[in-house]
Amino acid sequence: MFYDLIVSNRSYRRFHEEHSISVERMRELVDYGRLSPSGANKQPLKYIISRDKSKNDSIFPHLQWAGYLKDWAGPEEGERPSGYIVILQDTNIGPSGVDHGIAAQSILLGARSMELGGCIIQSIKRNELKTALQISDQYEILLVIALGKPKETVILDEINDGEDIKYWRDNNQEHHVPKRKLQDIIVE
Amino acid sequence: MFYDLIVSNRSYRRFHEEHSISVERMRELVDYGRLSPSGANKQPLKYIISRDKSKNDSIFPHLQWAGYLKDWAGPEEGERPSGYIVILQDTNIGPSGVDHGIAAQSILLGARSMELGGCIIQSIKRNELKTALQISDQYEILLVIALGKPKETVILDEINDGEDIKYWRDNNQEHHVPKRKLQDIIVE
Repeated sequence: MFYDLIVSNRSYRRFHEEHSISVERMRELVDYGRLSPSGANKQPLKYIISRDKSKNDSIFPHLQWAGYLKDWAGPEEGERPSGYIVILQDTNIGPSGVDHGIAAQSILLGARSMELGGCIIQSIKRNELKTALQISDQYEILLVIALGKPKETVILDEINDGEDIKYWRDNNQEHHVPKRKLQDIIVE
Repeated sequence: MFYDLIVSNRSYRRFHEEHSISVERMRELVDYGRLSPSGANKQPLKYIISRDKSKNDSIFPHLQWAGYLKDWAGPEEGERPSGYIVILQDTNIGPSGVDHGIAAQSILLGARSMELGGCIIQSIKRNELKTALQISDQYEILLVIALGKPKETVILDEINDGEDIKYWRDNNQEHHVPKRKLQDIIVE
């Protein structure tokens, strides 16, 4: 059921790094982005796939992980993503609007349907990553999607209006995400 | 299969308007937005649901339909959406980033899983719609999602780089959407 897919699609940040993702699956995930709605159908998004260790290692240092977890610098070796999809804007085509948000969610839900999981990363050292991946000036980095076989449990907690929305980890290293209640986000 | 869901999730603009969408389904669709990723988990999105004729009629005039179809002003009476979800930014919380793109895709895919369909509309007379729906200044209108039981066929055509991306309707009123090829959107 679609509800189960949506609920199971949490932001995962620790993975079974040894679980390799095939190039066919990576291309299929990009295809989910390709087949998603695009404002005025302009399709300005382009994609870089990374799935081998050396390329993954060149991406990882330029990403910021889980800003609210002050004592956690990101996943350790062995728990890092098995791959990445870097979403670019082709400046020869035009601005993305919200296309990259739409495409990112298609990719993440698609990954979940393959029993993979991931995380949309917006906090990126863009200049450094451009250099590391030798990305030409035709492209701007919009988002990085980290992907892998999840190795953590994420728990949704409902909160009341005004309560803290910062995610946190409990003593079992389970990751808690406070979510507003449905009734509090519908404006009558 | 997820691929089939993504492919069947086209932008639909003509509907069986008499097909009513229950309030439970509408709330479920908003819940898909609620359960989607949100940048820094801030959850600034709020939602207005419209599913009765008078409210739908107050929204419709403020939307622009299918900019490339110059001789088509939008769906006629009887083929209009059965409902809308208006995605708002709560300015007391903060900017949306790409949250509304993410949430919109969750809602559309969820609608498709209910055999409904829809269209993300970004071209909105925002001031007029704010007045029509008596939306307070606490909120900004980000997107409108039109929803209903689709009454049109949408065909995907693959194009080569540089070919025209404008969608068009053939003599059978079937809607064609040119999409770039997968190989052309992956940057090596």
